Amino acid sequence: MSRRPVAAIILAAGMGTRMKSETHKVLHPIGGRPMLLHLMASVDEIAPERTVVVVGARREQVEAAVADTGAVVVTQEPQLGTAHAVLQAKAALEGFDGDILVLYGDVPFIESATMRLMLSKLNNEKDTPAVVVLGFRATDPGAYGRIDADDGVIRKMVEFKDASPVERAIDLCNSGLLAVRSADLWPLLERVGNDNAAGEYYLPDIIMLAKEDDRTSRVVETAEAEVMGINSRAELAVAEARFQTDRRNHFMKEGVTLTDPGSVFFAFDTEIAADVSIAPNVVFGPGVSVGAGTRIHAFSHLEGAKVGEKAEIGPYARLRPGTDLAKGVKIGNFVETKKAVFAEGAKANHLSYIGDASVGAKANIGAGTITCNYDGFFKYKTEIGAGAFIGSNSALVAPVKIGDGAIVGAGSVMTKDVEADALAVARGVQDSKPGWAARFREAMTAKKKAAK
Amino acid sequence: MSRRPVAAIILAAGMGTRMKSETHKVLHPIGGRPMLLHLMASVDEIAPERTVVVVGARREQVEAAVADTGAVVVTQEPQLGTAHAVLQAKAALEGFDGDILVLYGDVPFIESATMRLMLSKLNNEKDTPAVVVLGFRATDPGAYGRIDADDGVIRKMVEFKDASPVERAIDLCNSGLLAVRSADLWPLLERVGNDNAAGEYYLPDIIMLAKEDDRTSRVVETAEAEVMGINSRAELAVAEARFQTDRRNHFMKEGVTLTDPGSVFFAFDTEIAADVSIAPNVVFGPGVSVGAGTRIHAFSHLEGAKVGEKAEIGPYARLRPGTDLAKGVKIGNFVETKKAVFAEGAKANHLSYIGDASVGAKANIGAGTITCNYDGFFKYKTEIGAGAFIGSNSALVAPVKIGDGAIVGAGSVMTKDVEADALAVARGVQDSKPGWAARFREAMTAKKKAAK
Amino acid sequence: MSRRPVAAIILAAGMGTRMKSETHKVLHPIGGRPMLLHLMASVDEIAPERTVVVVGARREQVEAAVADTGAVVVTQEPQLGTAHAVLQAKAALEGFDGDILVLYGDVPFIESATMRLMLSKLNNEKDTPAVVVLGFRATDPGAYGRIDADDGVIRKMVEFKDASPVERAIDLCNSGLLAVRSADLWPLLERVGNDNAAGEYYLPDIIMLAKEDDRTSRVVETAEAEVMGINSRAELAVAEARFQTDRRNHFMKEGVTLTDPGSVFFAFDTEIAADVSIAPNVVFGPGVSVGAGTRIHAFSHLEGAKVGEKAEIGPYARLRPGTDLAKGVKIGNFVETKKAVFAEGAKANHLSYIGDASVGAKANIGAGTITCNYDGFFKYKTEIGAGAFIGSNSALVAPVKIGDGAIVGAGSVMTKDVEADALAVARGVQDSKPGWAARFREAMTAKKKAAK
Repeated sequence: MSRRPVAAIILAAGMGTRMKSETHKVLHPIGGRPMLLHLMASVDEIAPERTVVVVGARREQVEAAVADTGAVVVTQEPQLGTAHAVLQAKAALEGFDGDILVLYGDVPFIESATMRLMLSKLNNEKDTPAVVVLGFRATDPGAYGRIDADDGVIRKMVEFKDASPVERAIDLCNSGLLAVRSADLWPLLERVGNDNAAGEYYLPDIIMLAKEDDRTSRVVETAEAEVMGINSRAELAVAEARFQTDRRNHFMKEGVTLTDPGSVFFAFDTEIAADVSIAPNVVFGPGVSVGAGTRIHAFSHLEGAKVGEKAEIGPYARLRPGTDLAKGVKIGNFVETKKAVFAEGAKANHLSYIGDASVGAKANIGAGTITCNYDGFFKYKTEIGAGAFIGSNSALVAPVKIGDGAIVGAGSVMTKDVEADALAVARGVQDSKPGWAARFREAMTAKKKAAK
Repeated sequence: MSRRPVAAIILAAGMGTRMKSETHKVLHPIGGRPMLLHLMASVDEIAPERTVVVVGARREQVEAAVADTGAVVVTQEPQLGTAHAVLQAKAALEGFDGDILVLYGDVPFIESATMRLMLSKLNNEKDTPAVVVLGFRATDPGAYGRIDADDGVIRKMVEFKDASPVERAIDLCNSGLLAVRSADLWPLLERVGNDNAAGEYYLPDIIMLAKEDDRTSRVVETAEAEVMGINSRAELAVAEARFQTDRRNHFMKEGVTLTDPGSVFFAFDTEIAADVSIAPNVVFGPGVSVGAGTRIHAFSHLEGAKVGEKAEIGPYARLRPGTDLAKGVKIGNFVETKKAVFAEGAKANHLSYIGDASVGAKANIGAGTITCNYDGFFKYKTEIGAGAFIGSNSALVAPVKIGDGAIVGAGSVMTKDVEADALAVARGVQDSKPGWAARFREAMTAKKKAAK
Repeated sequence: MSRRPVAAIILAAGMGTRMKSETHKVLHPIGGRPMLLHLMASVDEIAPERTVVVVGARREQVEAAVADTGAVVVTQEPQLGTAHAVLQAKAALEGFDGDILVLYGDVPFIESATMRLMLSKLNNEKDTPAVVVLGFRATDPGAYGRIDADDGVIRKMVEFKDASPVERAIDLCNSGLLAVRSADLWPLLERVGNDNAAGEYYLPDIIMLAKEDDRTSRVVETAEAEVMGINSRAELAVAEARFQTDRRNHFMKEGVTLTDPGSVFFAFDTEIAADVSIAPNVVFGPGVSVGAGTRIHAFSHLEGAKVGEKAEIGPYARLRPGTDLAKGVKIGNFVETKKAVFAEGAKANHLSYIGDASVGAKANIGAGTITCNYDGFFKYKTEIGAGAFIGSNSALVAPVKIGDGAIVGAGSVMTKDVEADALAVARGVQDSKPGWAARFREAMTAKKKAAK
């Protein structure tokens, strides 16, 4: 890590018009987390003293998203270019003396190693460059600004539209990211002008201004994929795919079987132990950990759930937040769990909703069991004891407690507690009307004919 | 659009043997619509006076499919080649004087712009060509017929098997589609012979016959993808993928988030507003529209459903035809709706079947609720009032009406109407037998041991 | 087939460390079957007299997997190289005189045609080669051992690390598989030394040893894909994808529609008739056959199930082992079947669990029906007669028999048999408390406010 203090300025004032969204562009999620927070997680790894996010519209959305991060949000209004945007962070960095990284909220994949490289280049070169720019070799340089450099020393930065044919032939492009000392940044910014077609204040101009002072600037190169920017839903999908590919490869390397890697979707914080097997079409929302030897069958959907070792999940299991499954638990098809703690070996194999509940070890929850946890105003808890057997199609009206080893008869509605080892039944008496169905069929068939 | 009257002849008499299907080849679906109707939708955009579909076997299938289109279906029997097929349409075009487009039912992606270009070329060139052929540059020309043309004027059309090495080197291929005036077509067709290996009457022969009359024919070029023909299930899958890619890109451009574009499947008529977010693995059948700001979670399946703004759908929601959801409605996991109208803010979050029903604003339908809408003969309606609360695992036996603000107790079977603001319960009385479960367990364990 | 007797030695002693698994590497599944058994199925096609599997650790896992195959499992301990591994099979092949194929348990895609080719080359060449090696042209030869051959006669086998630059330029690589006569193999193996860096006994050394005896060895070439080895979860995923692509193309060729081939997963033994249509996201476990004209909708999961003609399955249908569906059966959304036999035209359309049951022709099982087949110790059978109508949300407590044409009222719990044509109902009496809900709402709203 750089020894000098570091601050990060994250520019996020762009309108994001191509997203056609009411959500701020940098808050669109990748792997279940806003892209801005992906970037800030990498920034955190270099332990900055301060982080300033510069926004335009929708400031309150960004503020809510970074509320827990300690970052300061400032507004750029009107938006007069990137140099102007950086300048808006000046007040928030009052008193800060150190290195400043300028990053972009819609360029979320920058790794902390790259940031460190930029900072180290800024401080360790003999020529102590004024600015270190992050560049990349573009496969299709298109309209990117070009960097004309000689052995890493920048000779000229040039916008594509101003570039000569020779300059356009350069494939080293400007990512926009840079590192600069606070002591250099603010004076340089004051000198940036807006004498250009758009009337904007451009941040890269500080390099040429530094050059006028006989200060060098340098370029650090990184892979094109790392500086990918996200400006549309299509690019968001590409970023998501990139994130997922990385996670899939990571987990396979760690000993996880993915029958069809391309159909399993991880969140940014998913944790999967070795020897877990994941079938096609499984979706992980945020907050999931899965223990060793567990098998997750097709069409399962997990979010905010802790799954223990050697569990069997799905197919078609939906684990919602607050689900906590011990070793060997089975959650089967069309079963939804929420705030539900299952002890070792407990099972809910079919068509159930288990919410706000605790389920004891080896308890067996029959098909079609519903915990009635909500009365329209409050939520109540269902406690099912160890070894209890809940008959199929039962409704457990919370708050209710089914004792250890108790049996609930199929099709029952439990409104009162059941003591341990008891049998409890609550159902209607079976009544039969011989021949009724035959007569009904006859009458209805006649009615149906008449209706035609 | 062409000023002259237009008619379309769509050839669909091929056996489609490679499909190995009892369904006529041109009726296999792409994006939930028979490929023939994809083509006819494009044809409609040029407003033809008449459309004639020429079929061989399975005429009644095609007739049923085009019943609402105004197209005439004629039979070619026996099948003596494409020229003979076109001739079968003559009677149906009796009295028509204008331009005729010859199209193919298994070449469904031709755009109306291309048809217009062919027609305009037919009429606006100084040499008033007899025939305008649609050609394409093939990446792998293989066994396609070649077009030897000079600046768009056709010198020769040659079947691959009759082509010289020089001709085989030509990459401009014949799609089979063409435009020709009715006044030219019928006399030319009369002159087509069948003096060839297969003994068939070939449509492209009219170009050479016109040339004998010193009439020129011209070629219009289009992209190879547009003239793709579908002759096997594998090609059908490629066509489907092409259709889906087009739709996915379209919706992303319009501001729809597709977390994993490749796992979302649209129908030909799907409508999605901006700022809708669609998770992986979502299938749209025909007839779906989705309002702005709605989120569709993974594993959802929608068909014939209108979904309002800011709704939450899924995961695992199945919306069937006749579903109509107002703003802010939530349909959750393992819930099926059919002919069900939900007013603003109503919810059915878990494991329910809501069919032939209306649900009032902010009503809450508990987990495991079933509308019993069918008695084996007729379907009946369930009406649930605004603000009503249906307890979990309830059965609502239609016809039945639950009043505004009423509560149905969990596990109840409702066979009679419930008045507004009332509580209705219908369940058995809970009975408990202390120690029964322990004794049962003991007996069964003994029996299990004995059985071994 | 080769006229001479054949034996197969399958090497499977590698540690498979990169798999990070408690399961033996060769038992990881492809298309629902352990890779070793894929290989052994191909071996079976050449009808070997004996098959010997050489394992290191986890012998008991492999023994269990091959228990039904007649193969013998022997242990190599310690593991001193491939020649040493083959030698461990000697005792098990005592008395065998014929041709021996040396195969690898983690190279599962070798086809029997390739094995036959190797055996035929071993016996039909005039030079009666001592060894026939299976080689392949590698697109990226990397660190593979190279085969220096002249018109199929091996001049030299060389490990990559020992290869000269000229030898490294050879793209013909050694797969490790070979064929050799038993009469040659055992004496040659005795002469293999371990005078190399790793101190291991290498099997390919027998080729050079044979050469010392003026015996030729030959190479047979095959496609690189066929000799693909599986050493990591990532390679396992590639193998699975290869298997699935092969199956998807096969079924499309046979007349099956796959709307999105890449999202349908077959097992090794899946059988699908012509004119079946399979929507996106369908998973087949082992043991499934599907009859002609059936449609399988999205998100369906089938395993051990026989599905008849013109059935409708899904979406979200889960057919488990022992499911047997006659012609025209419909199994709809969120329905699970297990050991369930449905006669022609029977239906279970929604949210049901039908296990250990028989369902008569044209019977209709209402939404939310559960067969309560398990009492925690034994499983019991439910019999539903032809034309019976099971009302929604019913529980059928097995053992129980619903007669032909009988009707079960919605929301009933059936604990006793129902005679044919009778109506049976078992539910609570509906009771209503006017105004109760309004008062409850008032009280709860007050309580909720107080709680804030």
